[in-house]
Amino acid sequence: MKFPNRVKIVEVGPRDGLQNESTFIPTSTKIELINRLSDVGYSTIEATSFVSPKWIPQLADHTEVFQSIKKKSGISYPVLVPNMKGLEEALAVGVKEIAIFTAASETFTQKNINCSIEESFQRFIPVIDTANAANVRIRGYVSCALGCPFEGEILPESVAEVATRLYELGCYEISLGDTIGVGTPFKTKKMIESVVRKVPIASLAGHFHDTYGQALANIYAALELGLSVFDSSVSGLGGCPYAQGASGNVATEDLIYMLQGLNIDTGIDLDRLIDIGTYICQHLGRPSRSKVNLAIVAKRETKKCQMKFYFL
Amino acid sequence: MKFPNRVKIVEVGPRDGLQNESTFIPTSTKIELINRLSDVGYSTIEATSFVSPKWIPQLADHTEVFQSIKKKSGISYPVLVPNMKGLEEALAVGVKEIAIFTAASETFTQKNINCSIEESFQRFIPVIDTANAANVRIRGYVSCALGCPFEGEILPESVAEVATRLYELGCYEISLGDTIGVGTPFKTKKMIESVVRKVPIASLAGHFHDTYGQALANIYAALELGLSVFDSSVSGLGGCPYAQGASGNVATEDLIYMLQGLNIDTGIDLDRLIDIGTYICQHLGRPSRSKVNLAIVAKRETKKCQMKFYFL
Repeated sequence: MKFPNRVKIVEVGPRDGLQNESTFIPTSTKIELINRLSDVGYSTIEATSFVSPKWIPQLADHTEVFQSIKKKSGISYPVLVPNMKGLEEALAVGVKEIAIFTAASETFTQKNINCSIEESFQRFIPVIDTANAANVRIRGYVSCALGCPFEGEILPESVAEVATRLYELGCYEISLGDTIGVGTPFKTKKMIESVVRKVPIASLAGHFHDTYGQALANIYAALELGLSVFDSSVSGLGGCPYAQGASGNVATEDLIYMLQGLNIDTGIDLDRLIDIGTYICQHLGRPSRSKVNLAIVAKRETKKCQMKFYFL
Repeated sequence: MKFPNRVKIVEVGPRDGLQNESTFIPTSTKIELINRLSDVGYSTIEATSFVSPKWIPQLADHTEVFQSIKKKSGISYPVLVPNMKGLEEALAVGVKEIAIFTAASETFTQKNINCSIEESFQRFIPVIDTANAANVRIRGYVSCALGCPFEGEILPESVAEVATRLYELGCYEISLGDTIGVGTPFKTKKMIESVVRKVPIASLAGHFHDTYGQALANIYAALELGLSVFDSSVSGLGGCPYAQGASGNVATEDLIYMLQGLNIDTGIDLDRLIDIGTYICQHLGRPSRSKVNLAIVAKRETKKCQMKFYFL
């Protein structure tokens, strides 16, 4: 047991959370969301993706979003970049941290970014060289770390191999993603143990989708191995909102609630984060996917009712 | 680490799951639900509660439900009994197992069953004597094992004390309930460790509500201590369906999915259980609260679409 005392949460709601929304979310709402998140104690908020609007129309306003958010000192606002074009646009507006992404599954990489894993690394080289020259930090994502929608099982060794290459190319942190949320705790541990043989655990993050409701159990298992960075999205934004079964990232609120119970500090004010979850879900016109949000909001409303009662 | 190889799941959907539904569910639906559950591999299905209809109008049909379900050999169908009147009614229709209940919180016990913890044990004595004389097995519930809506924190020692008394009175199994779903993994472990000093772990069960989304992480932590019996409800039935924040029991489907990933056998056919979750949620007119149910149903529908596509 090597439970960390402190966990860094990387808020991915504004990017991973919103990217699949089919109705365009006003740019002002995205900016307001990030500005509010900047006020509750995060050190990292993934802001948007410098990707072609043909791929992800929802984030077509990436330049305006990045330029308009209030950049608070001490907070990093990484953006996803798929290629040199994205990087150049990002550098032009002063981005200080980027995230690059590939997968541990050949088929997924082909279908997602239309190239082999090997080719994805070839594409990274100029991106990484240019980012390094501009003094921009680089985070790496490995998708399908616990399973692939096309290939099914993924070997822990395949994840370790891709993670190691990202590490050797200079990524300061590699986020291991259960993209389709199929993992369970033992599988999570085996995968992390395999990666940790090659990459220091301090340079790794966990990125769990909650499609099968397993995200918190997997995170607990990962904490037992000493993993101390997790990606999550406020109110569980993400997935495909119109397909009932496609959950998003683990909800930041639920993660913080668990971590508080484990005496693990995150620096984030849960009570204020609840309001942000409620804010963005009202804008999206649907209930929060964070059980902690729903429970705490219900509790607050009950308190209000009781107070009314006392004053009658 | 003392992970069990096999876990017994006590399905509490028909009782704990349905008891708070405000619209009366037809008796025939309750019977059909239990009959379907009897077909997928459970060894224990809590059928109903022999409680006054004034307390729980939804289960006013307890006698008819118990009499009408097909009782499959090898399956136990326990019913809740709050007092001698309930026991007598239950014995009259041939009940072979009962569950008695109290709490680790004085205030909760007062508000829930209108007596002190001590008085609840006084009431148990004739119930237990009569049940023993009739060769009826007795299961015990301890509510508020990880927190109380009125008192807040509950000492692990208080849970251990109540559980020990139930054990000494002859309960073959004591179910430790996180009634309001506030627990987290360390708290869960401390509580179980405290109880296990006095009651053998083989005589204990965990009963986790998912109000704050922590149930599976808590169950994983409990499994690490060797706990091998868990209560759950199909599709997460339970809680208060009209208060957004009041989740029910952990969903049986999500629990089985995790256990399968841990190579822990339950004897239950998950695929067929999905259909039962869909069946009862359609009757209740709302989506399943099991993420595994939603994900697998969505996957099946996608498959059907693909098949259609191939045939075009």
